[in-house]
Amino acid sequence: MSGSTFGKIFRVTTWGESHGAAVGVIVDGCPAGLSLSEADIQTFLDRRKPGQNKYTTRRSEADTVEILSGVFEGYTTGTPISMVVRNKDQRSRDYGNIAATYRPGHADYPFQEKYGFRDYRGGGRSSGRETIGRVAAGAVASLILRELGITVKAYTKSIGPYKVEANAYHFSEIEENPLFMPNNEVAQQAQAYLDTLIKELNSSGGTIECIAKGLPAGIGEPVFDKLDALLAQAVMSVGAVKAVEIGDGISVAAAVGSENNDPFFMDKGKVSKRTNHSGGTLGGMSDGSPLVLRASIKPTSSIARKQHTVTIDGQDTEISIHGRHDPVIVPRAVVVIESMTAITLTDLLLQNLSSKMKHLKKVYAEDKNVE
Amino acid sequence: MSGSTFGKIFRVTTWGESHGAAVGVIVDGCPAGLSLSEADIQTFLDRRKPGQNKYTTRRSEADTVEILSGVFEGYTTGTPISMVVRNKDQRSRDYGNIAATYRPGHADYPFQEKYGFRDYRGGGRSSGRETIGRVAAGAVASLILRELGITVKAYTKSIGPYKVEANAYHFSEIEENPLFMPNNEVAQQAQAYLDTLIKELNSSGGTIECIAKGLPAGIGEPVFDKLDALLAQAVMSVGAVKAVEIGDGISVAAAVGSENNDPFFMDKGKVSKRTNHSGGTLGGMSDGSPLVLRASIKPTSSIARKQHTVTIDGQDTEISIHGRHDPVIVPRAVVVIESMTAITLTDLLLQNLSSKMKHLKKVYAEDKNVE
Amino acid sequence: MSGSTFGKIFRVTTWGESHGAAVGVIVDGCPAGLSLSEADIQTFLDRRKPGQNKYTTRRSEADTVEILSGVFEGYTTGTPISMVVRNKDQRSRDYGNIAATYRPGHADYPFQEKYGFRDYRGGGRSSGRETIGRVAAGAVASLILRELGITVKAYTKSIGPYKVEANAYHFSEIEENPLFMPNNEVAQQAQAYLDTLIKELNSSGGTIECIAKGLPAGIGEPVFDKLDALLAQAVMSVGAVKAVEIGDGISVAAAVGSENNDPFFMDKGKVSKRTNHSGGTLGGMSDGSPLVLRASIKPTSSIARKQHTVTIDGQDTEISIHGRHDPVIVPRAVVVIESMTAITLTDLLLQNLSSKMKHLKKVYAEDKNVE
Amino acid sequence: MSGSTFGKIFRVTTWGESHGAAVGVIVDGCPAGLSLSEADIQTFLDRRKPGQNKYTTRRSEADTVEILSGVFEGYTTGTPISMVVRNKDQRSRDYGNIAATYRPGHADYPFQEKYGFRDYRGGGRSSGRETIGRVAAGAVASLILRELGITVKAYTKSIGPYKVEANAYHFSEIEENPLFMPNNEVAQQAQAYLDTLIKELNSSGGTIECIAKGLPAGIGEPVFDKLDALLAQAVMSVGAVKAVEIGDGISVAAAVGSENNDPFFMDKGKVSKRTNHSGGTLGGMSDGSPLVLRASIKPTSSIARKQHTVTIDGQDTEISIHGRHDPVIVPRAVVVIESMTAITLTDLLLQNLSSKMKHLKKVYAEDKNVE
Repeated sequence: MSGSTFGKIFRVTTWGESHGAAVGVIVDGCPAGLSLSEADIQTFLDRRKPGQNKYTTRRSEADTVEILSGVFEGYTTGTPISMVVRNKDQRSRDYGNIAATYRPGHADYPFQEKYGFRDYRGGGRSSGRETIGRVAAGAVASLILRELGITVKAYTKSIGPYKVEANAYHFSEIEENPLFMPNNEVAQQAQAYLDTLIKELNSSGGTIECIAKGLPAGIGEPVFDKLDALLAQAVMSVGAVKAVEIGDGISVAAAVGSENNDPFFMDKGKVSKRTNHSGGTLGGMSDGSPLVLRASIKPTSSIARKQHTVTIDGQDTEISIHGRHDPVIVPRAVVVIESMTAITLTDLLLQNLSSKMKHLKKVYAEDKNVE
Repeated sequence: MSGSTFGKIFRVTTWGESHGAAVGVIVDGCPAGLSLSEADIQTFLDRRKPGQNKYTTRRSEADTVEILSGVFEGYTTGTPISMVVRNKDQRSRDYGNIAATYRPGHADYPFQEKYGFRDYRGGGRSSGRETIGRVAAGAVASLILRELGITVKAYTKSIGPYKVEANAYHFSEIEENPLFMPNNEVAQQAQAYLDTLIKELNSSGGTIECIAKGLPAGIGEPVFDKLDALLAQAVMSVGAVKAVEIGDGISVAAAVGSENNDPFFMDKGKVSKRTNHSGGTLGGMSDGSPLVLRASIKPTSSIARKQHTVTIDGQDTEISIHGRHDPVIVPRAVVVIESMTAITLTDLLLQNLSSKMKHLKKVYAEDKNVE
Repeated sequence: MSGSTFGKIFRVTTWGESHGAAVGVIVDGCPAGLSLSEADIQTFLDRRKPGQNKYTTRRSEADTVEILSGVFEGYTTGTPISMVVRNKDQRSRDYGNIAATYRPGHADYPFQEKYGFRDYRGGGRSSGRETIGRVAAGAVASLILRELGITVKAYTKSIGPYKVEANAYHFSEIEENPLFMPNNEVAQQAQAYLDTLIKELNSSGGTIECIAKGLPAGIGEPVFDKLDALLAQAVMSVGAVKAVEIGDGISVAAAVGSENNDPFFMDKGKVSKRTNHSGGTLGGMSDGSPLVLRASIKPTSSIARKQHTVTIDGQDTEISIHGRHDPVIVPRAVVVIESMTAITLTDLLLQNLSSKMKHLKKVYAEDKNVE
Repeated sequence: MSGSTFGKIFRVTTWGESHGAAVGVIVDGCPAGLSLSEADIQTFLDRRKPGQNKYTTRRSEADTVEILSGVFEGYTTGTPISMVVRNKDQRSRDYGNIAATYRPGHADYPFQEKYGFRDYRGGGRSSGRETIGRVAAGAVASLILRELGITVKAYTKSIGPYKVEANAYHFSEIEENPLFMPNNEVAQQAQAYLDTLIKELNSSGGTIECIAKGLPAGIGEPVFDKLDALLAQAVMSVGAVKAVEIGDGISVAAAVGSENNDPFFMDKGKVSKRTNHSGGTLGGMSDGSPLVLRASIKPTSSIARKQHTVTIDGQDTEISIHGRHDPVIVPRAVVVIESMTAITLTDLLLQNLSSKMKHLKKVYAEDKNVE
């Protein structure tokens, strides 16, 4: 079947394998008239580029994007935007031993079962390089959102046991540390922790949080395509994510209604909420408060430590995965989570255009040129 | 837009409002030749029926299902299965005051913003009664899974602070207590807790866990339609769910790779895993181990306590929500989470039929009758 | 798979069998705020009702529609509109002999091959009664179009050899004859022809034409979802249709470019066309001229004459189909073609809302209420 | 919205403009294990390549395809197949004057209305070069069909008034004349006719017929996704097609039932039909007989003759379209129609896998490896 497309109106289709010729994405359904250049995309891609510091894979890729269609004289035309990034540093020899062995924590085994064989080089389709297409699409989505006054921002909330508590956020510090944490002090503790893990040939998990502001109320569809439901799919579809939380997330299970409900009040003529336990969604639609979500990321599966596993021929064996791997994928995944959030919001804003007759009349009243 | 359909091949479309004439569901894409009767559906619906004990709303509904199409002589025909449940006890007067006031924690405000007006009676489309359609469809999905040797079972893991720990599961006790917990002792503590909350005009959250066994490896699509991603959408689309976890869930953020990875080993000629931190998915596909997911449910939003809120005319006001409300929705949501899981698995099993040429040849080799 | 849904935003899902309990439709994605009543739907359904004159089946059905959801206080709410029509006159004995025999021209044989068994009563899912759901949805679509100043009108262009030529159209006469032809004189000749065929236990084909006016230019998507392509699917999906033409249709094959091209000119400040060979579409988008399509309908397959056929056990046999059958289905299919056209136009108008940034800004500039 | 994707399981997404950097296609949902090389694709592309003789545009493009993903060691992997063809001969100066003028018969005007501006170079997205992606996908589909014993073949049935009658088909001659007609003699007459039109700065329409053999009965979904309905969309979505016919097509309108019905009979133990007026479909599903469809193609819109038109500023003007244009597009469209047919059949064969429980059991009985 076809699981490489996300979105109903703003449709993002990624393609490509880790060690194939290229990876890329088609963005279909982008409205015409959006200012868009390769530089806009590149800025986003550079945030997930490998080899930036010792916490990211040393694979050396420029990850330079080329826009092949859908843009004319600096503006989107309304037709599919095809973007491609050539794979350059395809050191296949690093991965040779995994052709015949299933790496623990990786997709190798189910991939082999599903398709009967697999492109074993560097994880193939299940490689993190697939997310290049998501980030390129996320860049486009973010530009649309910006035109509507909506901002999306993701950052690292925790690495292993080191966590930025809600009262210790310094958003200006996010870009100041290599882990993209909104608190340089916690980031330093986390770095020391990662240094230890690197020596121990081990890896760490962490948490990414994402906040969107400026979203009008009523975005999201009331039943299966709830704002939070589609965000859950979008975020959980990023490899290594094992939990998605909205607002208070798992802590609601232990809460009582009188505390969990956010009271409404009028603030300068606008409906507002005193608190935001809901994380910006009510009944699956945006409620006008900031949207808040969190993703729990598992530790990098590729570790140099010896692990027990089996071969594709059904023999017990051991494996040590050498090569170029991040001790933690959280920092590079930050822009991926931000991109998936932006894509989801964009798609739902476009879907919402048809929610009421009033919108139709507004659009078609003026544009009409009929015989 | 159209957010009332879930699934790509096994397509479930629910319809209906809390206080409209009826609620129902269309299941399109159900394979022909499945034995199916109204009694099969009713068994599932009875598990979410209101009025069963003091922890569930006293609204009195028989919730009797009628199958209107898609079944002939006891078997599905391959055409859409239309199922309908008439609403009977529509005591609209209970809800009169909410026409002009937004209830905290409810969808009232974003609904009004989205559509310009709303069916305010009992939550309208955002009512829990919408899940009747999901459960009816879940019953069909469960029958398909059963024919393939796959079982899905959900239960209450926690209510407020009362939680069944992993080493205290007694699955046989699930049906023995009104909270559907796999430990009668914890269930009794939770009941006492709920009794207190009822007196205090308050409500509680909780956690539902769902386990699926017998799923072959390789089910789920590798990118956006990952098994865990679609389960996340499916489960988060149930009202009141604020977090979805797979396997170790949020605890992976604090883990290290050497512990989080599940080592493979051969067990009686079969690829197996020593542990199941992954919760049965790798790279978004089933890995042959039991699938494990959890949903965190917020406390019932409707509480009789006085709450601050605003009117649709933009005036600050207070509201006390009387009427028939569950102090906790977890027990009744158990079968809804189980249904959404069964629906998702069924759809992905059907999607997986086209994963390899070998499947096509197997199916078309025998069936062919061509001129 | 699931082939019972049409449309991407305005989604129409029909269900039901000829001799099941009921037939119906879900319309999901209808914008909120449209005035809608059961009487609006009934008016459309009455145009395809059986038993109106000697050229239509004598099956006696009131075909009374009930709206079960999606409408509140006379307006659509934006949630799924569920409409149902109970089957009343299910004289199954009329159809008993077809359980074991494949009727020539009918779906019996491929249905049996596809699903392994079938609801043989009255054609089951392939019965013309399935179109009740289409017409009910078409009524909703037509109301949306009317609010935007768009009209859709279908009529009978030919019955057997009797055809209304382009220069002989009298649109006011369409409702004046039982065949819905825009020329009473031709209609009378066609009626005489049908009278003869009835005596001969035979049936006739015919042509339906449909014209839509008031459509703005630019509706339709440029590649696979072209306006004419989706109309072709919509119209060809009506049983018995064997050809779909747009504008000059098949006669373009023998034409030359200098004649087939429609010259543009300015008419009162508006871009207009001197001719309309294109039938209102250019490059798959509306061009501002009236949309013109035609459907060629095959003769009713059920005829009382003896025909050669085979049994499901693979024996040669003969069959005479008695019961209540139309000698021509064209007149009753007129409203079905009109409905499918209206549905397609509505869906593409809704899709077109997201075609340019200008639309987004127009809609979201005013509606915003953000914290 | 997103109209660049066709198919539900075998999903084809084309992208690219006439004078952009490249054109291409993503084929998602192709089963794993199909032998596939660039040479397989190139063979198909060469059939629509420009510059092959005097009846096709002299634009000089090698149209060399590169497969960027989804194939590993000569076999499809089940992941998206990305194929790209670089545009080389982008002589934009030829098209300069059309930036400000709407060409009659072209998409210029509705494109401008829909998106507010357009890539005017060579027709942009509405150029015939978009079909390169369709043909590349058609090549993949054809290989799948071949593995299942199904063949699809298209050819030119008529050019202007010169038509190959049903009793004059010589299929072996199709490749022997530059018009791909199954009759060299008629082809010569048609060539003489085209020579005259070229001198007269004019163009011709024509008819393409396509036949598929080996299709099992029961393929196609009974309601909106009928085999013939999806073929109608697929074929009508090819630019310049103005009519689609199945089997007897428009002539059924004048027929009577006793002649139009195809009698069944048993032939060597197999259900067969004496005639094939139906063109291989009954009730929207394949009936085991050869599938027959026809497309009516309008004359090339670009003619060097002077035509009346208007500017984008709303001024009446005249235009003569010089440059490199085919006097007839029928011969180059043959492989496009064949491709769209192959794509549609492949998608419906994959959809049909889930039609009955028997299929599921067949596939999952053997593949299972579960804990």
